[in-house]
Amino acid sequence: MKFTVKLIDIGTREVLLNIEDARSINALAGDRVQVLNENTGVSVAAFVSTTTTLIPQGTVGVYRITNEKLAVEDGHLVEVRLADRPSSLQFIKKKMDGERLTKDETFAVIRDVVNHDITPAELTAYITACYINALDMDEVEHLTRAMVETGEQISFHTHPIVDKHSIGGVPGNKISLLVVPIIAASGLKIPKTSSRAITGAGGTADLMEVLAPVGFSAEEVQKMTLKVGGAIVWGGATNIAPADDRIIIQEYPFRIDARGQMLASVMAKKYAVGADLVVIDIPVGQGAKVANVMEGRKMAREFIELGERLNMRVECALTYADSPVGRSIGPKLEVREALRILEGGDTPGSLLQKSAAIAGIALEMSGKAPLGTGSQMAVDILKSGAALAKFREIIEIQGGDPSVKSEDISPGKYEFVVNAPASGYVVEMNNQSLISMARNAGAPHDRGAGILLHAKKGNRVEKGEPIFTIYAERSWRLQKAIEEGRRLMPVLVEGMLLDRVPREFSWV
Amino acid sequence: MKFTVKLIDIGTREVLLNIEDARSINALAGDRVQVLNENTGVSVAAFVSTTTTLIPQGTVGVYRITNEKLAVEDGHLVEVRLADRPSSLQFIKKKMDGERLTKDETFAVIRDVVNHDITPAELTAYITACYINALDMDEVEHLTRAMVETGEQISFHTHPIVDKHSIGGVPGNKISLLVVPIIAASGLKIPKTSSRAITGAGGTADLMEVLAPVGFSAEEVQKMTLKVGGAIVWGGATNIAPADDRIIIQEYPFRIDARGQMLASVMAKKYAVGADLVVIDIPVGQGAKVANVMEGRKMAREFIELGERLNMRVECALTYADSPVGRSIGPKLEVREALRILEGGDTPGSLLQKSAAIAGIALEMSGKAPLGTGSQMAVDILKSGAALAKFREIIEIQGGDPSVKSEDISPGKYEFVVNAPASGYVVEMNNQSLISMARNAGAPHDRGAGILLHAKKGNRVEKGEPIFTIYAERSWRLQKAIEEGRRLMPVLVEGMLLDRVPREFSWV
Repeated sequence: MKFTVKLIDIGTREVLLNIEDARSINALAGDRVQVLNENTGVSVAAFVSTTTTLIPQGTVGVYRITNEKLAVEDGHLVEVRLADRPSSLQFIKKKMDGERLTKDETFAVIRDVVNHDITPAELTAYITACYINALDMDEVEHLTRAMVETGEQISFHTHPIVDKHSIGGVPGNKISLLVVPIIAASGLKIPKTSSRAITGAGGTADLMEVLAPVGFSAEEVQKMTLKVGGAIVWGGATNIAPADDRIIIQEYPFRIDARGQMLASVMAKKYAVGADLVVIDIPVGQGAKVANVMEGRKMAREFIELGERLNMRVECALTYADSPVGRSIGPKLEVREALRILEGGDTPGSLLQKSAAIAGIALEMSGKAPLGTGSQMAVDILKSGAALAKFREIIEIQGGDPSVKSEDISPGKYEFVVNAPASGYVVEMNNQSLISMARNAGAPHDRGAGILLHAKKGNRVEKGEPIFTIYAERSWRLQKAIEEGRRLMPVLVEGMLLDRVPREFSWV
Repeated sequence: MKFTVKLIDIGTREVLLNIEDARSINALAGDRVQVLNENTGVSVAAFVSTTTTLIPQGTVGVYRITNEKLAVEDGHLVEVRLADRPSSLQFIKKKMDGERLTKDETFAVIRDVVNHDITPAELTAYITACYINALDMDEVEHLTRAMVETGEQISFHTHPIVDKHSIGGVPGNKISLLVVPIIAASGLKIPKTSSRAITGAGGTADLMEVLAPVGFSAEEVQKMTLKVGGAIVWGGATNIAPADDRIIIQEYPFRIDARGQMLASVMAKKYAVGADLVVIDIPVGQGAKVANVMEGRKMAREFIELGERLNMRVECALTYADSPVGRSIGPKLEVREALRILEGGDTPGSLLQKSAAIAGIALEMSGKAPLGTGSQMAVDILKSGAALAKFREIIEIQGGDPSVKSEDISPGKYEFVVNAPASGYVVEMNNQSLISMARNAGAPHDRGAGILLHAKKGNRVEKGEPIFTIYAERSWRLQKAIEEGRRLMPVLVEGMLLDRVPREFSWV
């Protein structure tokens, strides 16, 4: 049937039909239709929403994502008909039935994911099936290649290209802000794409955005890397491995991170930027994605094998994840802390050591540093001021202010100090609770929101001494964070559970 | 944050936020928020869509389903905040991990399904997990009870209450239009809820709607059944086992029908209407849901066991499904065919026999007919005119015209006759292709669209004799059905594949 177009500015892959029209083409809400732009011959699949009043019969509401490729305007005529079932649904069914998918089948699924030709629910079925019927290494390789080839790719003429990735799970892990400048200052190239926080208090992209824009195309990333040796950008803007972002969104409600998909997700992004040498940071500890060293070693072997299949050299570092990295959580606080070290500071030691260790592995892999000396070379690069100078070049080429100093970065003006309810040792510091407090305070959206730790696990504190400060940009956000802190009690001093001794508790 | 309400007439469980506001509450498109009506204290979960222009900052667009319980009006103030994760997501994850769910866990999931508190994608994860990690009989029983208890229920003071169900997969299966009047005419009570077609050319509800309204509440179904002995209504309007409809919609893209869910789906509807005696029609044959008799017997045993757990007596009939039941496919054609038999007709024999057999089992189970005589009693009731009289009472009480006759029912005015391309025997008649043609002709929406078979499998036809007629209410629909017929070639005469002998093919 033919319909008159009315554009609707909602960011989904849908069309809105009067319920009578929907019935007339035998479509129910949620059904897939093909919409044909008869002027261009372009046809796109979209999903039906229905209304009784918003759209009269004979008109079709075309949502923003639907119109990305369709490119129609108000008043145009389009043909709308019930769509055929995409063949990838059969392949998803096959995976549900416990069979292995071929390379072509995996590519078909991922292509449909990227083109929005299957629904979030259908993608969830694929993810669930792959979670239960785990992918073997062939399937992981196919998935990785499919993710790469359905997005933008960078290819460099100079080698080696270095990259790093942290698989996440530990708060305050701002090491990319140090590792990238160190590597670039050594003369190597490192085109670092990074993510925004989904469940965290700030991804590397959120952090870098405090200093400079982070939205660039893949081509721009390549140019910047060639010019100054590195860049720290938001991967979501590059259209590199776009399928991965969609998969992650669907995994999120279940907090799953199926092994095969995780491997493919990480390595697709490294492969797509043309990396030759890759360092993977695997935080290990309670509450991290990897609970113990045995599991971490197994994951490391899988990363290395997948790297070999893709012609990348991979080394993995199992890192300590029982406490936050450094003493800050939240974009501005973390950026300030990283800048202080680049400016020559020695603390926090955990941040300095971890950054130097990860950078050092890459320096050794590349041959820049003899085995066993990479970490020291990284520290030397930091101390010499070369990393700071390089970071400023990176900030400048991304459009930020290269003269920025750590003291220019101020957290939100609303703050609340939490003091030790008793003297003793900090025996527990719950990562998830700290993140939850930071998010309630407004991070990552409010760049100045977050948590600054004054004591860390194992430290001795005296009664009334500050343990941590909550920062927020809005006063109601500070209140919410305080409430969340009361509920979660993220810090334990000498085995005394704070919420069982309210009379001694200093929140009020 | 507080927002001003703007109602939006779109039938989903969403809210529309300006993208800046969404960021400000840390919500991404698709995230779950809680919307609080501060006047009533009612809070509902909804999912975020984002826009840059349709909604200004400070305003929230409230979609129709979101507002069903929220009950706000334009200009009201509501509080919108990021929602907690429903606990049923943990249970779904547990099922993904291969564990069994307890009764409480299953109830939590189904409650969230009914309240739209989990997304279609999350429900799909549950369905996929239950498909791969099959439910055991305890879990099936819990699922059945959860489906029943989260919807309306009917309870009768008189007994026994009879019900029947066909598990589907064979076209033209209009037997409920005969079975219900026969049973009711015998003095038994049969409150029949039925479905509309999803993939078929007409569900029993679509058929009955040709004769009378089918949308009634559970209470109305009970009253009508008490008054005239039976009713044939659309289950979707009764709010009986509403979770089931949502599950079926999500299964549809994958054409799966997980055993446990199917058992629960069928039996929940029987249990909820208070049935004591249930006859299950299990069509067996190529292309049906059950491919062979062994599988059919296994399914029958499962139905019987589940019935015992729920205190219902169940008998199953394995029925022939290689050809359509009767000679018509599509609402009006099927209704006309059923009325002709109620009016005393003897053909088509397949419809008469099958209806009498199914009704006969129920008559025997109830003690109305001695064992081995039920089917004959059903035929006698038909021949006496008692079933027709009862059907007219049912039509009348549902608000239709009780004086309706078969000759009053006319199919669509556009028709196309397909003739035999050669003399021979009809050796194949593809059920799925016949349904697809009927749907392309406009069925079930266009009640007069469908297929009338002049020959059936095994019949001798002479070259040029009509094999079947396609009916449609709109000429473009007829064209589409003809094209679909050309593509699918649903009928084979004496092993001659029609699409390989286009010169002899009489479509043109």
